[in-house]
Amino acid sequence: MNSVVILANGDFPKHPTPLRILKEAASIICCDGAVNYLNEYGLKPSQIIGDMDSISKELKIKYEGRLIHIEEQNENDLRKALKWAENNGAKKAIILGATGKRDDHSLANIFTLLEFPSQLKMTIFTDHGKFSVVKGDQKFASFTGEQVSLFSVDQTIEITTTYLKYNLNSKKLTTLYFGSLNESINDIFTISISHGEILVYQVFK
Amino acid sequence: MNSVVILANGDFPKHPTPLRILKEAASIICCDGAVNYLNEYGLKPSQIIGDMDSISKELKIKYEGRLIHIEEQNENDLRKALKWAENNGAKKAIILGATGKRDDHSLANIFTLLEFPSQLKMTIFTDHGKFSVVKGDQKFASFTGEQVSLFSVDQTIEITTTYLKYNLNSKKLTTLYFGSLNESINDIFTISISHGEILVYQVFK
Repeated sequence: MNSVVILANGDFPKHPTPLRILKEAASIICCDGAVNYLNEYGLKPSQIIGDMDSISKELKIKYEGRLIHIEEQNENDLRKALKWAENNGAKKAIILGATGKRDDHSLANIFTLLEFPSQLKMTIFTDHGKFSVVKGDQKFASFTGEQVSLFSVDQTIEITTTYLKYNLNSKKLTTLYFGSLNESINDIFTISISHGEILVYQVFK
Repeated sequence: MNSVVILANGDFPKHPTPLRILKEAASIICCDGAVNYLNEYGLKPSQIIGDMDSISKELKIKYEGRLIHIEEQNENDLRKALKWAENNGAKKAIILGATGKRDDHSLANIFTLLEFPSQLKMTIFTDHGKFSVVKGDQKFASFTGEQVSLFSVDQTIEITTTYLKYNLNSKKLTTLYFGSLNESINDIFTISISHGEILVYQVFK
């Protein structure tokens, strides 16, 4: 299990990109009630992780052998799933269904990518674009006109970019909105950061 | 103009609470293209603020006297509208349509509440709940079982709460997800913070 797809319990994907990821996934870990939507869509979960308070009775019986019941007051079902995947050998997690519905859940899920202590390479695909984590120096596949936003919680991180419309040169992001609304001007762009991790968001074509 | 309603260009409200606010508003400031939806809904804007790149030609003519064209590369239309409202005497801004559509816009809009330098008392109402800003010691009207989340970007802020299921006692929020998933156990709850500002999110009944 090198790469896993985790379906969180926000809005079920509508956009072709996350739907394709879901359909092509070798294994899908569902966060609790998300399995209701997956089942309706005609796909099967490999595991269902959570405190099982929102999965239907019928599906509890149908997927009895795939239920992994984890009670942990401080963690939501997404972080339980990420921890379980890492403990079971995953190196990479693609997260779907992380946004929509409750805004506090969406925020907590997005910043889990950045702030949850894990060795997993994590990305979130929503119906509008994808969030990924930047460490050190990275090159991103892009296209001219691609809308790009950077988010840093740690205001001490210095960021340098190339091939963006508004490039940063050893610049710190002093607010969470300051790095938003940028744009790619090439088929790649690069981001180098002094230390730590930041989020990059790329809007789908 | 003590209190203004600002309609940002995310998803147009569907939930009765933000819709009631919109219908009862004495004046509505629209962020650029948001006026297309407002007009369709049968309401009129007081002002339309932005760089006017997403308002229809027809509405540009219809509301010619209400267009306030502001070009400013570093600010999005919501922050332009907030600045304009404050400069024109507003003390309080209720923001609708701040989420949905692009996730980077939603994030930037939510953290504008916390990080944008302004004297305005700002709240965001979405289709799921409301975000407001906490300063000093505050008491919140609530109900037993109300889902509550706290978000602090500044990790040095010490937070103390009463009447929440998981109360904080001079606790710092070390991640943006750590204060989420709390719950009210009374018809009020209180939050006291050592300095600065944090966000509180309350889910609608």
